[in-house]
Amino acid sequence: MRYEELTIEGRNAVLEAFRSGKTIDRLFVLKGCQDGPVNSILREARKRDTVISYVPKERLDHMSETGKHQGVIAYAAAYEYAQVEDMLRRAEEKGEAPFLILLDNIEDPHNLGAIIRTANLAGAHGVIIPKRRAAGLTATVAKASAGALNYTPVAKVTNLGTAIEELKKQGIWFVCADMNGTVMYDADLKGPIGLVIGNEGEGVSRLIREKCDYQVAVPMKGDIDSLNASVAAGVLAYEIVRQRRG
Amino acid sequence: MRYEELTIEGRNAVLEAFRSGKTIDRLFVLKGCQDGPVNSILREARKRDTVISYVPKERLDHMSETGKHQGVIAYAAAYEYAQVEDMLRRAEEKGEAPFLILLDNIEDPHNLGAIIRTANLAGAHGVIIPKRRAAGLTATVAKASAGALNYTPVAKVTNLGTAIEELKKQGIWFVCADMNGTVMYDADLKGPIGLVIGNEGEGVSRLIREKCDYQVAVPMKGDIDSLNASVAAGVLAYEIVRQRRG
Repeated sequence: MRYEELTIEGRNAVLEAFRSGKTIDRLFVLKGCQDGPVNSILREARKRDTVISYVPKERLDHMSETGKHQGVIAYAAAYEYAQVEDMLRRAEEKGEAPFLILLDNIEDPHNLGAIIRTANLAGAHGVIIPKRRAAGLTATVAKASAGALNYTPVAKVTNLGTAIEELKKQGIWFVCADMNGTVMYDADLKGPIGLVIGNEGEGVSRLIREKCDYQVAVPMKGDIDSLNASVAAGVLAYEIVRQRRG
Repeated sequence: MRYEELTIEGRNAVLEAFRSGKTIDRLFVLKGCQDGPVNSILREARKRDTVISYVPKERLDHMSETGKHQGVIAYAAAYEYAQVEDMLRRAEEKGEAPFLILLDNIEDPHNLGAIIRTANLAGAHGVIIPKRRAAGLTATVAKASAGALNYTPVAKVTNLGTAIEELKKQGIWFVCADMNGTVMYDADLKGPIGLVIGNEGEGVSRLIREKCDYQVAVPMKGDIDSLNASVAAGVLAYEIVRQRRG
């Protein structure tokens, strides 16, 4: 994994970035713009399933750092994404049951970074994030991860639910936090596991929750509703660590 | 506890704030300014042991929101601080062994807020922070606490080491995180306890560490050095919750 330029502007630069294989997190194109070069860029973006936003000129002008966007701006990932298969291979090489952390739309880059940091120290084999509606691997995330992004692979998937279905076929069990679930100390979290952490505001979405095998609860003895997302991830990840060491 | 005005400017307003009993986190005074009204303010500040900074005019001009600071600006706490005694009384009323969280110079208001949120949900009776070199109870902290600041008391002490000595006399044991300590699962964390969380960069300072009865380690299976401070606080606080419920 390596550090990269974050904002790429202008038709040639963006097309070149796609063709060189750079990971583009998001593409912004001037609304209504349909000429040849722009269509080539859109074709490349669709081939790679990049998220495309059609925006007014004012928005592009505002985003632009050089003032020469020519109707096209791309956000490249600060780090290279990994593949889910790499994570499973990693677990196998270490002779450990797979331990993955899946993030259902974490939006705050500080939370994302802190969770990657936790994943590294709790011995998780990787972190899986969805392509849309989630923070990507920006420089802020890299900083908040305190270097963990250099060691712990992060994969980006088009659909988190599909990824869960695929991984279930490979023997992984999925667990998510839910206030009404089994108290985490009483659940069996020792086997091959995917821990799902919900969005900061709304928790784990219904669709994803329904795909999980267990719901576990962090005991709540206070007056408010929920822990900070990265703290919840830490508490649950370390309950897995505790059970696994026995 | 209630929301308050944050920046108070001008001689009368600041003097009035002190005399009305408002909690002033910090007082900024124009360097070299020694006239009667300013001396009255300094007297009030010293009486309350407020942190005083003598700063050049440019700094005050920059901090000023009204442009009329007259050489004096005070930062008031967004919330009222509690007393350590209140926390012990709280524990007694609930029939629980005291569980306090002490923060050795947490600087990031998001971390401070997240830790107060964790303290609330883990059933801690209060959070103790030092007067100097630490984030105070600002609006950012209140927001990051997700409302927990309305329920969980926070006390500010002049010297954290002295506070620990005093609380030891009342039967509280102190524990801090240290890589070389006993693995947390093997330490006995059931009794009256003060959990000490270190600064984001440097961990728990030597002086404070030496005052602690135990050092416990969060198991680290990864490549980097340490968890985010609020995640570490969450993992340790929930190990206390786990041991106490048995």
